[in-house]
Parts: sequence; structure tokens; C-alpha cells
Amino acid sequence: MGKKIITIGEIMMRMNTPEHLRFSQADTYHVTYGGAEANVAISLAQFGLETSHVTAFPDNDLGTKASSYLRQNGLDTQFVYFREGRMGLYFLENGSMQRASRIIYDRFDSAFANFDGNEIDWDLVFEGASWFHWTGITPAISQKAADLLLKALKVASSKGLTISADINYRRNLWQYGKGPLDIMPELIRYSHVIVAGSSDFENCMDIKVNDWADACFQAKSDFPNIRYITKTKRESISASHNRLKGILWNGKEVLKSKTYEITHIVDRVGGGDAFIAGLIYGLLHTDDQVALEFATAASVLKHSIPGDANLVKVEEVFDLVHDKNVGKLLR
Amino acid sequence: MGKKIITIGEIMMRMNTPEHLRFSQADTYHVTYGGAEANVAISLAQFGLETSHVTAFPDNDLGTKASSYLRQNGLDTQFVYFREGRMGLYFLENGSMQRASRIIYDRFDSAFANFDGNEIDWDLVFEGASWFHWTGITPAISQKAADLLLKALKVASSKGLTISADINYRRNLWQYGKGPLDIMPELIRYSHVIVAGSSDFENCMDIKVNDWADACFQAKSDFPNIRYITKTKRESISASHNRLKGILWNGKEVLKSKTYEITHIVDRVGGGDAFIAGLIYGLLHTDDQVALEFATAASVLKHSIPGDANLVKVEEVFDLVHDKNVGKLLR
Amino acid sequence: MGKKIITIGEIMMRMNTPEHLRFSQADTYHVTYGGAEANVAISLAQFGLETSHVTAFPDNDLGTKASSYLRQNGLDTQFVYFREGRMGLYFLENGSMQRASRIIYDRFDSAFANFDGNEIDWDLVFEGASWFHWTGITPAISQKAADLLLKALKVASSKGLTISADINYRRNLWQYGKGPLDIMPELIRYSHVIVAGSSDFENCMDIKVNDWADACFQAKSDFPNIRYITKTKRESISASHNRLKGILWNGKEVLKSKTYEITHIVDRVGGGDAFIAGLIYGLLHTDDQVALEFATAASVLKHSIPGDANLVKVEEVFDLVHDKNVGKLLR
Amino acid sequence: MGKKIITIGEIMMRMNTPEHLRFSQADTYHVTYGGAEANVAISLAQFGLETSHVTAFPDNDLGTKASSYLRQNGLDTQFVYFREGRMGLYFLENGSMQRASRIIYDRFDSAFANFDGNEIDWDLVFEGASWFHWTGITPAISQKAADLLLKALKVASSKGLTISADINYRRNLWQYGKGPLDIMPELIRYSHVIVAGSSDFENCMDIKVNDWADACFQAKSDFPNIRYITKTKRESISASHNRLKGILWNGKEVLKSKTYEITHIVDRVGGGDAFIAGLIYGLLHTDDQVALEFATAASVLKHSIPGDANLVKVEEVFDLVHDKNVGKLLR
Amino acid sequence: MGKKIITIGEIMMRMNTPEHLRFSQADTYHVTYGGAEANVAISLAQFGLETSHVTAFPDNDLGTKASSYLRQNGLDTQFVYFREGRMGLYFLENGSMQRASRIIYDRFDSAFANFDGNEIDWDLVFEGASWFHWTGITPAISQKAADLLLKALKVASSKGLTISADINYRRNLWQYGKGPLDIMPELIRYSHVIVAGSSDFENCMDIKVNDWADACFQAKSDFPNIRYITKTKRESISASHNRLKGILWNGKEVLKSKTYEITHIVDRVGGGDAFIAGLIYGLLHTDDQVALEFATAASVLKHSIPGDANLVKVEEVFDLVHDKNVGKLLR
Amino acid sequence: MGKKIITIGEIMMRMNTPEHLRFSQADTYHVTYGGAEANVAISLAQFGLETSHVTAFPDNDLGTKASSYLRQNGLDTQFVYFREGRMGLYFLENGSMQRASRIIYDRFDSAFANFDGNEIDWDLVFEGASWFHWTGITPAISQKAADLLLKALKVASSKGLTISADINYRRNLWQYGKGPLDIMPELIRYSHVIVAGSSDFENCMDIKVNDWADACFQAKSDFPNIRYITKTKRESISASHNRLKGILWNGKEVLKSKTYEITHIVDRVGGGDAFIAGLIYGLLHTDDQVALEFATAASVLKHSIPGDANLVKVEEVFDLVHDKNVGKLLR
Repeated sequence: MGKKIITIGEIMMRMNTPEHLRFSQADTYHVTYGGAEANVAISLAQFGLETSHVTAFPDNDLGTKASSYLRQNGLDTQFVYFREGRMGLYFLENGSMQRASRIIYDRFDSAFANFDGNEIDWDLVFEGASWFHWTGITPAISQKAADLLLKALKVASSKGLTISADINYRRNLWQYGKGPLDIMPELIRYSHVIVAGSSDFENCMDIKVNDWADACFQAKSDFPNIRYITKTKRESISASHNRLKGILWNGKEVLKSKTYEITHIVDRVGGGDAFIAGLIYGLLHTDDQVALEFATAASVLKHSIPGDANLVKVEEVFDLVHDKNVGKLLR
Repeated sequence: MGKKIITIGEIMMRMNTPEHLRFSQADTYHVTYGGAEANVAISLAQFGLETSHVTAFPDNDLGTKASSYLRQNGLDTQFVYFREGRMGLYFLENGSMQRASRIIYDRFDSAFANFDGNEIDWDLVFEGASWFHWTGITPAISQKAADLLLKALKVASSKGLTISADINYRRNLWQYGKGPLDIMPELIRYSHVIVAGSSDFENCMDIKVNDWADACFQAKSDFPNIRYITKTKRESISASHNRLKGILWNGKEVLKSKTYEITHIVDRVGGGDAFIAGLIYGLLHTDDQVALEFATAASVLKHSIPGDANLVKVEEVFDLVHDKNVGKLLR
Repeated sequence: MGKKIITIGEIMMRMNTPEHLRFSQADTYHVTYGGAEANVAISLAQFGLETSHVTAFPDNDLGTKASSYLRQNGLDTQFVYFREGRMGLYFLENGSMQRASRIIYDRFDSAFANFDGNEIDWDLVFEGASWFHWTGITPAISQKAADLLLKALKVASSKGLTISADINYRRNLWQYGKGPLDIMPELIRYSHVIVAGSSDFENCMDIKVNDWADACFQAKSDFPNIRYITKTKRESISASHNRLKGILWNGKEVLKSKTYEITHIVDRVGGGDAFIAGLIYGLLHTDDQVALEFATAASVLKHSIPGDANLVKVEEVFDLVHDKNVGKLLR
Repeated sequence: MGKKIITIGEIMMRMNTPEHLRFSQADTYHVTYGGAEANVAISLAQFGLETSHVTAFPDNDLGTKASSYLRQNGLDTQFVYFREGRMGLYFLENGSMQRASRIIYDRFDSAFANFDGNEIDWDLVFEGASWFHWTGITPAISQKAADLLLKALKVASSKGLTISADINYRRNLWQYGKGPLDIMPELIRYSHVIVAGSSDFENCMDIKVNDWADACFQAKSDFPNIRYITKTKRESISASHNRLKGILWNGKEVLKSKTYEITHIVDRVGGGDAFIAGLIYGLLHTDDQVALEFATAASVLKHSIPGDANLVKVEEVFDLVHDKNVGKLLR
Repeated sequence: MGKKIITIGEIMMRMNTPEHLRFSQADTYHVTYGGAEANVAISLAQFGLETSHVTAFPDNDLGTKASSYLRQNGLDTQFVYFREGRMGLYFLENGSMQRASRIIYDRFDSAFANFDGNEIDWDLVFEGASWFHWTGITPAISQKAADLLLKALKVASSKGLTISADINYRRNLWQYGKGPLDIMPELIRYSHVIVAGSSDFENCMDIKVNDWADACFQAKSDFPNIRYITKTKRESISASHNRLKGILWNGKEVLKSKTYEITHIVDRVGGGDAFIAGLIYGLLHTDDQVALEFATAASVLKHSIPGDANLVKVEEVFDLVHDKNVGKLLR
Repeated sequence: MGKKIITIGEIMMRMNTPEHLRFSQADTYHVTYGGAEANVAISLAQFGLETSHVTAFPDNDLGTKASSYLRQNGLDTQFVYFREGRMGLYFLENGSMQRASRIIYDRFDSAFANFDGNEIDWDLVFEGASWFHWTGITPAISQKAADLLLKALKVASSKGLTISADINYRRNLWQYGKGPLDIMPELIRYSHVIVAGSSDFENCMDIKVNDWADACFQAKSDFPNIRYITKTKRESISASHNRLKGILWNGKEVLKSKTYEITHIVDRVGGGDAFIAGLIYGLLHTDDQVALEFATAASVLKHSIPGDANLVKVEEVFDLVHDKNVGKLLR
């Protein structure tokens, strides 16, 4: 069985103000694309893994461009569909110093939200794949998206793929009449690797959290397929200076990574997705502790790169894990 | 009675690809703002007239920025409202040579479309105003927008303002269950100056057109308030080269302006709005023929300016009318 | 009585080199506008207060553009006058690391310097206003500017406005034959809130300073209208890293704010103006200590924003005061 | 048999001065990628055909980026190889008005020039393909490149593909000890569609040209596989204004397309490649005359697009062929 | 005797709006430098001649940068002086289509205007020089500048240099109490080659012009040193389309150059200076008619280049004279 | 004897990705120029010393532009030669945070590498010069470059110039069949001031290093001309944060400078060259300890400036040495 990774989810056009300009100052926007799941897939593609992303874009030039962004970054796009509808958007003002970063979403009624995916041949999608990754954003978008994901999970599960889920609870979504507890537990049931902090446990898994490790054991008991639960711990000294470490519960104990000082932050969006991609790569190739260190170092490097996606190679991440070439000038 | 002009209508955020890039090439967008009615108001403000625009924006930083664009260009914004909802958008790829320009609209469900304007004090809005301008885009957006406009027209009419209307029939709008013939005739009934080509006559006024002048007389008979009907005639040799003249029926005869060769076009969006603004200015200050020449010259100059709005002064327009300083270097 | 704020003073066109380029490297300049008093007014407008600025610009497109900058940022510009003369300019090279920032002024003989303002209806200017703010830069520019300011102060005083003054002693100005001690004491006499460090006390108020608190009491005795004296204390570790706190003498005691580490500075110009705007807002809305904390936090946030003006909202400042959302990603 | 198209050839990094700047003025370069054969493949991919390009890039980040450019524009890159060596470069100064455009090549000793391709499985390359396109640039680069191409031609021929060749004689290449007459005739022998002007006939096919039609018949007699010979006729009024038509000899007669005035040229590089791509598409889908009109219109549209590649769709080309929507604003 | 050329005059910092933006739209300015005489010198330096320019800049980083611009473009700067004062500026809005270009000057009280040049060793300046070029702008700036120029002319004349003068009458200058007829005749008396149109003859040489050729003979009689009088004839169809020819009276007859259609103009500023530089080069190297054709072709090419200076080589100009490579793509 | 400084060496075109973009993201490159020796010369020119650089560029517009860069920054370019061949290039991706900076060189077979310099009149080159600086990069490029340098050293030595050498061992160069130990000792023999770390001692001087001071004494014994040996010690906390001090052995003892925290690094390329330039200036003007402090402070300031060259003035460096105006806003 190969190591092809399948992801599913919406990709938005990201419009961000240049340099340190506020929304009120910007007359130009830099455009790139982002979505939690595609961010993971792109990072894995940079690590050399085969990845295919399932999504729908509007059937116009903006959709074509978004799809070409995925191809450009190494994803297989044969399961990208073009449908009537609009492109989900988000506007980003990067913070700096004590000033926070701000996102204005404009993603409702997108082509993806209205996509039922009835024509998808899921056997073909998962052919030769070993891992399937999803996030809690997809079922929060629309009933159709939740149904689509459930269908995918059933097939992936029946084929024996490893399934990872970033719970990623977002209060602002879930506008279509269902709440997370109506939907998420059934989806989580299929999953083996879970990214969850306290808010995720409570809102999506109905687990009250006093102690995170206890919550992990409780989750395992409620959702027996779970093998790993993970999260990052981020301290925000300022928009330009964070402190980050990774935490991984492996069914037995809670592992912790090194703690990194991240100063001179360029772009923190996608830092969590970079962590998950690192963890998937790590769990596929090394042991638990190294996987966690790899994931955390990958996330750290993401903060130095403009855009949502973590465009770094395996060697670069391992160099940081081993404190090698850090910030050097490599000729 | 002063010469304050009132306009109403949606303003969209305009995202256009820089230089000659296609949508598929652009990673940066220039952002400005445009809406047929606000374009007219801004042009009139550059001519030195007092103008106030009635609209609604989303209650977020994008809305604030759009409003500051109106202030920056001289409009009074005391009747700009901030409401829940999204900003209407349009994406623009400027054509060049034989390649056409392309617009992708993304304007449904905007804050303006959902704005009922119940809190507007229309007496205050029209206080000291002599002219009200609207377009057929507003009633095409939503029932609420159509109702809002009707309310405004009734007050404006009762206060004796001159009312102008750019029929501007757009097939892609009118998605809310009503057709133009359900709505437009009642609105047109209040109006004295009409911008209408054949498609407008047929779709919005139920007048079949063999000869435009005949149609004008028919319109006058169906809508007795009408005093002027106008349009431009544009030949498109290429995206960089158009030929333009203005035509004005003044109840008696059809006047024609000079014909202009417009080569090396910079931005043709808003050319029609510039014409109307020129005509309003002209009708307020001079005779019919000069007004028409002024309107056409104003429209020609718009093609040299990036963005939707015609940022030229009265003297510049008259210089072109009088063939003075054309393309010179003025020190 | 409303809370409208009136300010007066010159606005210069600011040309700054992009990114970290030195003057010797730059072939492009970013253009914005700045002036100590208008910076205060713009900041107050962002806080939601009504503000009107009195100034003169050259009667050409550069003046028009500068005026539209004020409108864009929320100021009332009915008391902006267009006169013969030139636009004051300043060229800015932003420092970084240990390298200092540099300003080259080119502001002599500006339209404002030659403006006598005889046509100003000062009663109209101050109608509905509660606060008047001026700085020591205005009387340092020219005799006409000093006279204009004195006239304004007399009216403002007679109408019972609160008057604040940023002494802001600049050795390079005062070129028209008068020294600060010839002019400033009379002007300060009208003022209630004073921004003054040791150099200001000595050069403009003829008060020798051993201890700043003592000097404040002395000032109160010399200028009995004074109720508050304030200043910031800035330590410059590098151009990218400062340490800042605010200090306020309220007639009784010296209050101090939290001290902030400001690293990754984007633009420190206007930091003092942001402090004063914050203090004015604070004194109008809260108690002395909170006002001081608000002022200092406002100044800190300014350092994260390109340009002279502090484009932040009240909630953002209070968030920083309360150590909330600092440097977070707000969705 | 499907319609997959195979191309082979070097892709260079193209560095062009922005706007109208001369080499002596530019401190910034726009980077894109181009190569005669890949340009053809990308254009065909935009037309909706499956295309795969065979090439070699340096095994560094510049090579990776170039390859991602191909993927982004729709090419299959499974036959892109990464090898030691450098990236071929070309520097471009776009002309304007009477000033000519200038290219400085820096392409010697590239990874492609030194690539022997021994590991290529040519059966796999041509699997499912119906057309193979090559140009005279490849055998002019190096002996290895000439050998590689010959190998490809033999396999393509044995599998019955249609083979097209753009002779494209370049005096500045051919530096490795062989002349075009040593190499080209053998390669041309395999080809069915030939792009050749007088200089190509003389230098690469040893055919003296008095009359182009006569030369075509002679070529057919010397190279019996030839079915079509084509060229464009370009008049250069200025760098901003050309006149273009296409010419096609189909074994029986010489067909001519409409002549186009091309004013306001944006970028003429790749105009010939766009023509060939159009002709291939046309010959695969329509009759000879329409194919020629399609090819010429495609080439015209290329001149409006920055970069080497013709990013237009089939409908856009047919619109121009049918004089529809020319230079319009399409909403 | 070598062919070193000496020029004298002010250089201003030129701030121009990017692309086609109006002053009211620009938030960024492109910065370059220009002055009628230095423009001539730079053009001659590109032609391969040795040139040295005499001027004064402010003694700050802006002056240093301006001087480095001269060096960068090949001038000898040993006679550039740094003095107290400001940099002369001009703001440029490039026109397009029918919209005129606009310049706002801000050059009064510059370092050059206040420079008496007492320390200049004129013998050293003119050592090895064969030609001295000045314009009527210098004596129009200030009494000091007029005196400085007169001193230079006396030395140049005594050393037998050829002296050329572009009369270049500018009504907006001449603000220091003298009129052109007070000053210019004495200066013109030293000159051999004169650029003069009707307005120049009348305002600076007191010669009424009915017929330009007659005026030339009259000028020769009034100023016996004159050998050549020249001018260009420019028709302005639009800012993007001019028609240009050169005219040269050589003491005997009036020669005319080819007439050029100049469409798609990039930047017309400096077109006259390019003509003069071309004429100087031509008179130094060829016969009268060829010199005139060379001058006109040089001026045409200037219009394709952003900035004041004509950055073209001798071969490029001769190519245009001979209608060779016009608008081609040169590889 | 004057203080003219002569340097020799290749200058490359430097293409660096804008802002923080990775190679894989950049579609635009900023272009500047750099070479270890020219960087030193430019820095010395900014300090007010006369400098002349000997090099060869390709005989095309890229070479001309590179030469104009040298002139622009104050170098004498009379010994710059234009020859057939290509321009050496390097591509730079600036790191940030923990992410390293990366350089891709593309410098083989450059015009300089193939330049034998037979036509150079070395007596003229060194006329009036007091110092000659070279680096170990030049002899590593090609046999011709090594021979050229040796010739220069012989003349410089015979004329009694002080000679400094930055050993600068680069493993990736030295591809022409000779190793550093074949070539370097002879060259070092002529030199008085040496920049050498452990790797340089071992690879180029055949001195094993346990203790750097011991190695210095050993070097003195092996190469009796040596008077000073120097190096910097850099700690790389991240790409944005380094720690730097300078070290100088003066034949008697090892001196150390202050240690600087360098945070918010803008561009670290050329930091070593800035140090050497500072040291040369210091040794020419002050005592050993001050020279070392000057050199280190100069290097620190370089990190704040984009590009290879240290564009700072003597006063700025001394200000930092004396902890004056550090990071201030200088008006």
C-alpha cells in the first residue's frame, strides 16, 4: 500500500493587505489561496508525498486559477470539480507588534457549500491511498458538505485508510440549522488521529475538559478508533512574537516537543495545518516523539513564509529539529 | 434652490488585475470601488457640485474603507448606512487589443441588497437638492432595493427635483422573482431624463424599437414626464480603440455630438456613467447641444483614467470640447 | 455641548522610501500626509469623535489630494483653504535595527506659512466644539501662522473650550526672526493640557528643569490655566525596538502607565501624536489613570501602522490596555 | 486514439524588465518561463487538450519552480527530469513605438543541453498520444539534444503519430560543431506539418526559395512525409503596431487568412508558437481554411497577453475568427 | 581638440505618478531626475561622448542621490557642488489619450538658484572641451544663475568652443525682477547653434516672426555668431499620438527631416532635449541633413523611454534613420 | 601618498526574491549587484575614499548596467572592461526567523572568468593608490583570474601599497583543476592584512588551528609580510537575529570589539565585506582598537540595508561606536 494522501475541503481565495497595511489603508491585495485541508495536502506534497484533494470551485476563471494554484503546488487535481456558484473568500490583515491580525470571511453560498458530489467515484478517489484527512470546517459549512464528507469517510474507512481529523471548531460557521454535536460525533467515530483542544472536546465531542490528558482517555473510550490526539500550545507575546510547542497523546502518555521562540513572524496563518501535515509525515515515517518534533518544527517554519501553505522540504524541517543551519546563509 | 445632487445605489469593491494580466495570471489585485450611481456622483463632485449618495455597506472594515473612498472623492456620506451582510464585489480583467475585457460579478446577498432603509429620513436626504439620479441596476438587485428606490422617487418627485434614470438593463440581475416590466415602468414614470438604448426600451419600457427617434416619441407618450432621452454610440474596433459619440433627443429632435476616436484606452469601465454625469452638469449649466458635447467629451476623458470614476474637472472637459490642449504637456 | 474637536496646523506631503531602502537607494516613494495636529485629529476621528481641521494647502492638485486624504480619514474639511504657494514636504527614511530613521524637511514658504486666515469665521469654526488642540510647530513656522493661532486661541478661550497644546520645540524651525520665548508663553497661557518634556519647559516656558514634577508645579504657577501636563518616556534600544511609557501630572501627582516593549516597529512617526489623541479621548471619557493607560496603549499601536496617523479604534486600544487579544489572529 | 499531444524542448527562465523600462533602467525583473515547444503545449492545454512535455531542469529550487509553472498551466510533468546543471535564461526588454524589443540569451550549458535522456521510456511517453511537436531549436542546442530528439522522432514515427516541426532557424545557436544541414534533414524527414519561411528552407532544408509555394512543392518532393507547410507574414510598423496574416500550403494550394492590424501590442514573444498551437488544434478539429483562421486569430490574441504563453480559450479564438465580442466588455 | 561636451544647469527631482494615475489617485511616486541641459548631456554620454555637467545640489542625501544619478548615466560629476538649500522638484502626471500631461513645478529657492559658483575654476571645466550647451531656463531662475552662466559663456567663448543654446522661453520663470530681454540677448550673442521657435524669437531675441526662415536670417544679422537655428514641429493628436519632424536652418536654407507618426507614447518629457543632443552629435559627426535626421530620430525614440533622459545608442538612432529593425524583436 | 584604494574581482548580478518569498513563490526579482571586493570598494567610497575597481563585464546591456551600478555608488570605472561572455549571477532567497537564507550561484564561464587582462596598464591602475584589496574568491574562479591577480599583486607590492586579503575559502569554487594550496600561499605572501577563520587557515594556508591566536603567530612566521589578522564571530540565533563581534590580531595581541545583538535583520549578505571596509578605513585613520570597533559597527549597520553594499557614512558608524543616536528619529 502506497502513501498517497487524500484530503477534502473548501479552498478560499485569500486577499491580504500588503506589508503591514490595515484594511483601511490597502488599495492593493495580494492574492493566494487557502483551506485547512488543502494546506495540509500542499505541505505533504512538498515533503514528497503523493496527494490528491477533493473540492469544488466556481466554473469561472477564478475557479480555474484556484485549481491551477493546487497543481502548481504539487496536488493531483483530477477530483476538483467546477460548478455554478461563487468562490469563497477571506480578507486578511496581518498584524504586527501588539496589533492583532484580522480575518473577514466571505465564504457563504460557495460552489463547494452547494456541491453534493454525487458524481464522485469514491473508489477511484481512494485507490492506492493510505491516509485520509478532514477537518471540522467542512461539516460546518452546509448539510451538503457534511453529507459529502460522511460518504467519503465511510468509503475510506471500509478501505482501511488511516483517518485524521482536525476538529477545528468555529463558532461563526454552523449556520445551516445543525450544531456540531448533531454531526461531529458520527464523523469522528471513523477517525484515528484527532487534533483537539479543550474547545473542540467540549463543542464537538461533548467531553468536558479539566485536564487535557484525561479528556484524551475519555475520548478514546467514547470513540474507540482514536489512536492519537494532538494539539499545539501557542503563547502570543505579540503578533510578531509567539511561543510554540506541540503536544501528542499516543494512547499511553502525553509527549511534548521542544518549545520554540518565534520572533519576527511573517505569516502565522496555516501554522496549525503545517503542524498536522508534519505530524502525518512523522507518523508515517518515524516514531511518536520524532513525529511530534517534526510537526512542531514544520509549524515553526511556516511562520516565516507568506501565504497559507508551508512550502518547506523534509530536510529543512529535520535541520530545525536537529538545530542545524538555523537562520544561516546557505550557499 | 441649490444644485445638490442625490444618488442612490450599491457600490462594489472592484478587484482588477494589474497591467494587462489575465485572471489566470494575477497574484495581485488593484482595489477600487464602483457603482453606476456613485460613479455619476463622484464625477459631479469633481465638477464642483455638492453630491450626497445613499447606500448601505457591510458593518466591517471593508465597508468603512468603501465609505472612505466616497468621502475621499468628495461625496457627502451622511446617508451611508452600515449593516450586516457582505460587500458586493466585482473582478475585472482589462482587455487589450482584440481581447475583450471581462467582469466576474459576485454581488448577490450584499448588505445593500438586504437593506430596507426604513430609518432613512428622506426629507432630510433631499433637503436643498435639485436633482436625483438612479439606475435600473438598483431595482434589479432585490425586492428591498426596488422598494427603497420607489420610496425615494416618490419623495423626490413630490419635492419637485429633476429625476434622471439610466435604464441600464442587465439580464444577469433580476433574480428575485420579478422581471423588469413588473417594476421599471412605475419607476420610470417619475423620471425626466432617460438613458436608454434599444434593449432598454424593449426590456424595461415595453417599446419595440425600429427607429430610436420614434421610440423616443413613443416613450414620451407612454411616460409623459420624460423630457430628454439620451444614449452613446460606441464602436469597438478593439479593446484599445473605440469610437464614441453621444446622442440626445430633447423632445423635439435628435442631436449628435462630435465623434471621437479613442485609442490607447486605459479603462473603459464607467464610460457611460461619465457621460451621464456630464449630461447632468451640462443640462444644469448650458444648452442642449453644449450639454451633449460636454457629456461626450467627459466620457472620452474617462477612458484615460484607471478606475470606475471620472476624475476630471470642468475645465478639462471644456478644453476637449473646444479641441484645446488635447494631449499637450501643460506646465 | 458636543465633543467636536478642532485642530489647526500645517499638513505636509510625506515621501518615504519603501521597505528598508535608504535615500540613496530609493527610486520610488510612498506618499502619505502628516502634520502633528492633523495626526491627532485623524486619530480622534477613528475613535468616533467629530473633528474639524483648519489649514491651508496650495491651490493645485497636490493640495486637493492632501485635502482628500483628510476627508478619507474622517475629518471635516470645510475649513481647509486653497491658496497660492507650495506644499510643505518631508522625506522619510525609516530606520531599522541600530540604524536611525532620518527626516529631510522641505517645508519653508508653504501655502500654510503664508496664510493669514483673515477670511476665517472663527465663531463658525468653534461652533459646537468642546476641545481645541494646537502644537508649538505652528507658531514656529512664520509670523502669520503665529498670529493665526493666537486669534484662534482667543476665540476658543472665550467660548470656554478645553485647550491642549503639544509644545513640541523644534530648533530647526523658528527662522522668521522671533524666538519661542517671544511667542510661546502668550499662547500657552490659554491652554489647559500641556505636553512638555524638559527641553520644552526650558525653551518655550522659560522653566529650568531639575525634576519634572517640580517643573509641572512651577508651570501651573506661571500659567494658571494648566490642569494637566504630560509626556512619554521612550527608550530607543534600536530603530526596531523601543520601550515606552506615558506620564501624566494632574495637578496633584505624577501618574505612570504600564511600560511597553515595542519590538518589530513598523513606523514610529506620529507616536507622540497618537499618545495625545489617546489622552484627549481618555480625559473626555474616563478617569486620569485610565486616560493615561489609554493614551500609552494608543501610542504603542501606532508603531505597528505605516504612515503618520494612528488608524485604530477605541476597542483595539482598550483591548491592549486590558492585555486582551494581543497579537492574536481574530477571525 | 486520443488527442494527447507530446512536446519536447528546453524551457528558459525569462526575466523581463517591467513596464517600458530599458535594461539600463530596470532594478526589478518579472520572471516567467518560456520555450518554443512548451509554449505550444501550454496553449494547447488551454484549448482543453491533454499535453505532456519532455524536458530537463536543474536540480534546484529554480528548476522546481519552472516545473511548477508547467503544472500550473496544465501540462503533465511526469517526463520532466531534474539534473545537475544550470537553468537556461533569457533577458527581455520589451520595445515600444519605433524602439525594438531586445533579447539577451544566457542559455548555454543548461541542464537540458547536457541531458541525454537515456532513462526515458519513450513507449510510456507516447502512450495514448496522437501528435508530437518539435522545433529546430532543440537540435541546435547540443549534440545530446539532437540525439535525444532523433530518438523521440523514431519512436513517435513508429507509433504513427502526426509530427509537426517548427524549423525556427537561429543563427546564434548551432555552436557545438554541427551545422543545420548536418542534422535537420534527417529530423524533418519524420515530420508531416512544417513551419518554414525562406530562411528555414535555405538553411535547414537546402531549398533555395524564389517563390514560397514552389519551395513547398520542392520540400514535399524532398521530404515526402510532409503534408502541410505554414508560416505567418508579419509586418512591423512599430513595436506597438504589427500587421499579421497566416499562410498554409496544404499540398495543393496556398491558403491565406484574414490580415489583422495588431495595435497596442502588449507582448509579441510567443506569437509564432501561439500560431502553431492554433494550427494543431485546427487541423485536429476542423478543415484547412478554418484551421488557418483559428491559428492566426490565436496568434493575434497572444500579443495582448504578457509572457510567452497564449492563455486563451477556444471560444475566445473563435469569437475573434467570427469578429464577435472584439474588444468588448463582457459582463 | 577632443569632443568633450560641457553643460550647465539645474537638475530637479522628478516625481511622477505611476502608470496612468492622476495626481488625485497616486499614493506612490516614481522618482527620477531631469533638467533640460543634463538631459542633453546624458543623451550625449549614451552616444559615447565625454560629458561633464556643472550644477549645484543641496548638501543632503537627496542631493547625493541626484548626483549619483548623473554618474550612473555616464556624466562626469567633478563640477557638481553641494550647497545649503533645497532640491528643485517637479511633479508629473503623464497624460494619455486626449488627456493632457501635467507638470507642477516646485523649484524656487533651490540650491542651484542660490549658487554663485565663485569657486569654480572655469579653465579646468572647459579643459579639453569642444562644445558648451546651455538653455534659457538657467538665466530665468535667478540673478545668480544668470551671472554664473554669463561667466561660463565668456570663458567658453574665449577658448573657442562651439556654443549651443536652447532658448526655451518659460513664462512661469523669470520671477526675480529681470525680463528675458534684459538678459538673453547678451547670452545669445556668444552662441552658434540656437533652438528657437516663434515664441522664443519674440520673447528672448526681440524678433517678430511672420516667417520662421526670415526670422532666422534676421537673427543671424542681430547675433552674428549664429550658424544654425533649429526647432521641432510637433502635432499633438493626443497624449498618446504625436506627429514630429525636425527643422534646421543652416545659414542658407531650411532643411526638414522625415515626419514621424509617434503612437503609443510612453513619455514625451525630454523629447526636445533628445533632439538637441542628437543634433549636437550629428553636427559633430556628419553633414547637416543627416544631423537633422539623426536628431529627429533620436527624439522619436525618446518618447518610448520612461524618464527625462534619452537612453539610446548611436546605432539605434541610425537604425531608425535608415528604417531598419523598426519595432522588431532583436535576439 | 593619497588614500586611493584599488580592488579587483568579479561582480555578479544578484536576483533576490522580494519580501520574504521563497524561490518557489517569487514571480518578481529585485536586481542589484555584488562581489566581495566591489562591496568593500563601495563601502570605502561611501566613507569618502577614492576607489577604483578592476573587473570585466559582458559586452552587452547587462554589463553596462552593472558598470553603471558601480559608478552610481562612487567607484571609478576606468578599469572596467567589456568582453564576450556572460554575466555571473546569483539568486538569493532571504531567510527569516529560523528559516535559513539560500543562495544559488550561476557564475561559471563568466566574462570575468575568461578575462586575461593582458591590456591592463597596471602602473596606471595603481598610480596614486595606497591600498590594494583582494579576496580568495578571485583565484578560485579560473586559472586566468588567478594569473591576473598574481600580476596585480606583484605590481602593487613593488609600488609599496598596503595589501589586504580576505581568504574567504569557498569549497564550491576551485573547479578548474587547481586547489587552494596550489595557489593561495603565493598570493598571501604579498599581503599585510588577512581576514581568516579556522577553515581559511587550514584550506588556504595549510595551518592547523587549535587556537586562533596561535594560528595567527604561525601565519606571521609562514608569511612574514602579515601585520594584521582579523575575523568576525557571528552567532546565528535565527535568520532575523544574530550576535556579532570583531576580532583583530595585531601581531602582538588579540583585540575584541563590543558584541552586538542584531535583531530584525534586513539583509546579512555583505556583512563580512562591510567589516573589512570598516577595518581598512579604521587602520588608515585611527588606532587598532578603534579600527576594530569601527569595523564591527560598520558590519552591524550593513545588516539593516538591502543589497550587498554597506551604504553608510563615517559619522553613522562612529555614532554607533559611541552608542549615539542608535535607532533614533533624526530630523
